[in-house]
Amino acid sequence: MADLTAETGVPVPTIKYYLREGLLPPGRALGRNQAEYSRAHVRRLKLVRALVEYGGLSIAVIRDLVRHLDDPDVRGGDLLGAAQLTVTAQHEPPAGPKDRAEEIVDDLLARHGWHDLDRHPSRHTLIGLVRSLSELGREDMLDVLDDYAVAAERVAEADLRVVGELLDRERALEIVVLGTQLGDTIITSLRRLAQAHVAQRLHGPSPSGPPGTGQAGH
Amino acid sequence: MADLTAETGVPVPTIKYYLREGLLPPGRALGRNQAEYSRAHVRRLKLVRALVEYGGLSIAVIRDLVRHLDDPDVRGGDLLGAAQLTVTAQHEPPAGPKDRAEEIVDDLLARHGWHDLDRHPSRHTLIGLVRSLSELGREDMLDVLDDYAVAAERVAEADLRVVGELLDRERALEIVVLGTQLGDTIITSLRRLAQAHVAQRLHGPSPSGPPGTGQAGH
Repeated sequence: MADLTAETGVPVPTIKYYLREGLLPPGRALGRNQAEYSRAHVRRLKLVRALVEYGGLSIAVIRDLVRHLDDPDVRGGDLLGAAQLTVTAQHEPPAGPKDRAEEIVDDLLARHGWHDLDRHPSRHTLIGLVRSLSELGREDMLDVLDDYAVAAERVAEADLRVVGELLDRERALEIVVLGTQLGDTIITSLRRLAQAHVAQRLHGPSPSGPPGTGQAGH
Repeated sequence: MADLTAETGVPVPTIKYYLREGLLPPGRALGRNQAEYSRAHVRRLKLVRALVEYGGLSIAVIRDLVRHLDDPDVRGGDLLGAAQLTVTAQHEPPAGPKDRAEEIVDDLLARHGWHDLDRHPSRHTLIGLVRSLSELGREDMLDVLDDYAVAAERVAEADLRVVGELLDRERALEIVVLGTQLGDTIITSLRRLAQAHVAQRLHGPSPSGPPGTGQAGH
């Protein structure tokens, strides 16, 4: 276990915690207080660490993700969907007659040619978000939706290109899990940077601390 | 307070909790057990509710955001930056000599003409993410970065367009706060939907449950 720590920088008590929580499979027992850990352990430990550090995921969600990695019943074609859904907020489908928020979302999906997504939980999330913005009197913010959809399709095409090139199942699963979760953080980080860039271009740097420098933060 | 509940659907105990936590300003006292709440309270309550429900933010972070809304010292030009940074993960700047991950990120920013972002916390987050992917042997996933950056700039331009059209300070602040936080969730929801759409286009719907229908989830 000291070797695992040396190689990954993860402290021993944390490794023990991950073992107890089932995020890391047990090592091969060598004696009462000794176990042997393989390259697969080093790899899994780095994966878990990345998901904790940058994915902002709970231990329970990471346990689910790791199960997909180890589950032989999860087939290739369902991998993207299964891993995606694990890290996707599960909002209930809208009840009752179709309201304006639902119409706005379905019109958006239709305009971009995205079909057969009626039961996707992210559609429900999106409807809830649109409804919240409407209730707050912020329908003006919905003007961004078409640009966001174009951007999202560009992102998704890049995502599928990376997954599609892979033949190795374990690696493909890992990429889906990492790509879905860390990819969200990469995208939101790039959005912040792009906002700072566009703001500077439009307004010039602010003397008291432009958005790009973190002066206004705390 | 019963009226606030009737208008917003937020239960009385939750409203009391928000008052105690400083997310909602106190009403005007009318007697020992009565207070009057204004339209501003209804509005703020809906805002807090939306941030809790869809922003996935802690109470402490929402308190910070609400403070920006109420702080007269936060000037127009710094609003985007300040609100952005409140909801931006604060990772430390990289220490020591420039490593490969830092180079990859700085080359990316330079390629897209995004300058003067050396001290932006999202740059540090991005470097950490790139380093994690490299350590996991997943440098192949970095192929998406240019597409992501183009998509992020399109998103940011739409964001700034909405903020730029506003003259009302309170509304502008609200849009930045809502747009930054809820916008992230809108983008990740659209990314999931677009992935399902692109996967269907490439592989056709899977009989056991395509990514679009949530069959593979749990």
